[in-house]
Amino acid sequence: MSEDVPNDGEIRLVTAVVRPDRLGDVKRALAEVGAPSLTVTNVSGRGSQPAKKGQWRGEEYTVDLHQKVKIECVVADIPAETVADAIADAARTGEPGDGKVFIMPVDDAVQVRTGKTGRDAV
Amino acid sequence: MSEDVPNDGEIRLVTAVVRPDRLGDVKRALAEVGAPSLTVTNVSGRGSQPAKKGQWRGEEYTVDLHQKVKIECVVADIPAETVADAIADAARTGEPGDGKVFIMPVDDAVQVRTGKTGRDAV
Amino acid sequence: MSEDVPNDGEIRLVTAVVRPDRLGDVKRALAEVGAPSLTVTNVSGRGSQPAKKGQWRGEEYTVDLHQKVKIECVVADIPAETVADAIADAARTGEPGDGKVFIMPVDDAVQVRTGKTGRDAV
Ligand SMILES: Nc1ncnc2c1ncn2[C@@H]1O[C@H](COP(=O)(O)OP(=O)(O)OP(=O)(O)O)[C@@H](O)[C@H]1O
Ligand SMILES: Nc1ncnc2c1ncn2[C@@H]1O[C@H](COP(=O)(O)OP(=O)(O)OP(=O)(O)O)[C@@H](O)[C@H]1O
Ligand SMILES: Nc1ncnc2c1ncn2[C@@H]1O[C@H](COP(=O)(O)OP(=O)(O)OP(=O)(O)O)[C@@H](O)[C@H]1O
Ligand SMILES: [Mg+2]
Ligand SMILES: [Mg+2]
Ligand SMILES: [Mg+2]
Repeated sequence: MSEDVPNDGEIRLVTAVVRPDRLGDVKRALAEVGAPSLTVTNVSGRGSQPAKKGQWRGEEYTVDLHQKVKIECVVADIPAETVADAIADAARTGEPGDGKVFIMPVDDAVQVRTGKTGRDAV
Repeated sequence: MSEDVPNDGEIRLVTAVVRPDRLGDVKRALAEVGAPSLTVTNVSGRGSQPAKKGQWRGEEYTVDLHQKVKIECVVADIPAETVADAIADAARTGEPGDGKVFIMPVDDAVQVRTGKTGRDAV
Repeated sequence: MSEDVPNDGEIRLVTAVVRPDRLGDVKRALAEVGAPSLTVTNVSGRGSQPAKKGQWRGEEYTVDLHQKVKIECVVADIPAETVADAIADAARTGEPGDGKVFIMPVDDAVQVRTGKTGRDAV
C-alpha cells in the first residue's frame, strides 16, 4: 500500500486523543493512507477550557473529565505527519474538545509472531 | 498562565502512574502550575516489591497487580520537570506503591479543531 | 538482580501489545530477566490483516478490533532489547495477532515515594 510514499527513514508513534464517535471515521482514514494498524484505549481527559458546570437533582456539579478514545499508530513507511493529518481531518468537528495528536520517536520494534525487528516489524 | 515561566523550547510528555485516590490532588496541582490539560487511563501494575499475599475463604492468593491511574500531560510552555515535581508532590503518601513519573520527548503536536501544529498546539 | 547485566546508560520504555491470555507468561518472563515492574492497560486493536468476518443471527458483521493487553516497562539497568525479546518470546503463539513490541526513549524518571530521579527512580 505504501510503495509510492516517501520513506522518512524513521519509526514514529502517532498518538491521538479524539471524541469516541469519531473513531470509525479515523479508522477509515488510516486505512486510506495505508496505515491500518492501530491500538485503541478508552480514556478521559480535559483540555484547556474550564470545567463544564451542570445540575443534578438541584446540586451543581462539575464535569471535569470527558470520555475520549486514544488511538496509537506506529508507522515506518508512511510519514507520521501524513498519519497525523489524516487523523485530525477525520476527527475534526470544529467544536472545542476535538482533541490532539502527538508524534513521538520510536527506537525499535519487534513483530512478536515473526521476531522481525526494525521498520519491517511495524 | 505560563507567561513568566522559562521556556525550554521543547515539547515533552509527562506520564505518571499513581494511586487512584490521588487523582483529584494531582489535577489541582497541574492546574496550579499552569498545565491543566491531561489524559487519564485506568491501569494496573506492579513495582519492585514482591507480590502481596492475602487470604480468601481459607485459600492463599496473590495480589500481583494493583489498580492505578495513568495521567499524561503534554507540555510546551511549562518545563516538564516542574510538571513532574508537581505531580509527584501531589501523589506522595510516603508508602510503597506511590508510583512513578516518566518524561519523554515529543516531536510534534496537532490541535485537531484548529489544525495548529507545534508548541501552539499543545 | 541486574548486577551482571551490561548497562546501556539510558532509560527506555518498552511497550508491548499482546494477547490477553499471554499476560501471565509475560509477567513471569519479565521477572526472570530482572525487570518485574510493569503497567498493564486493556486495549483493543488491529494489525495489518483485513478485518475478520463473522455471522450473528444471520447477519454478517465485522470483528475489526481485537481485545489485547498493553504492557509497559520502563527499564534502566536491563537493556531494552533484552526486555523486548523476553516479552516477545513469552507472548508468541505463531499465529497472526501475536502483537508488537516498541522501544522508546525516556528522558527522565521520578520515584514518587522517595523523590529520586534518573536511573535510580526506574
Ligand atoms: N496537553 C495535553 N496533554 C495531554 N492530553 C491532552 C492535552 N490536550 C488535550 N489533551 C487530551 O485531548 C482531549 C481533548 O482536548 P481538547 O480538544 O479539549 O484540547 P484543547 O486544547 O482544549 O482544544 P479546544 O480548544 O479545541 O477544545 C482532552 O480531553 C485530553 O484527553
Ligand atoms: N519501571 C516501571 N515501568 C512501568 N511501570 C512502572 C514501573 N515502576 C512502577 N510502575 C508503575 O507504577 C506503579 C507503582 O509503582 P511503585 O510505586 O510500587 O514503584 P516502586 O519502584 O516499587 O516504588 P515503591 O518502593 O515506592 O513502592 C506500579 O503499579 C506500575 O503500574
Ligand atoms: N503499527 C502498529 N501501531 C499500533 N499498534 C499496533 C501496530 N501493529 C500492531 N499493533 C497492535 O498489536 C495488535 C496485534 O497486532 P498483530 O500481531 O495482528 O500485528 P500484525 O502486523 O498484523 O502481525 P501478524 O501478521 O503476526 O498478525 C493489534 O491489535 C494492535 O493493537
Ligand atoms: Mg478543549
Ligand atoms: Mg512498589
Ligand atoms: Mg495481524
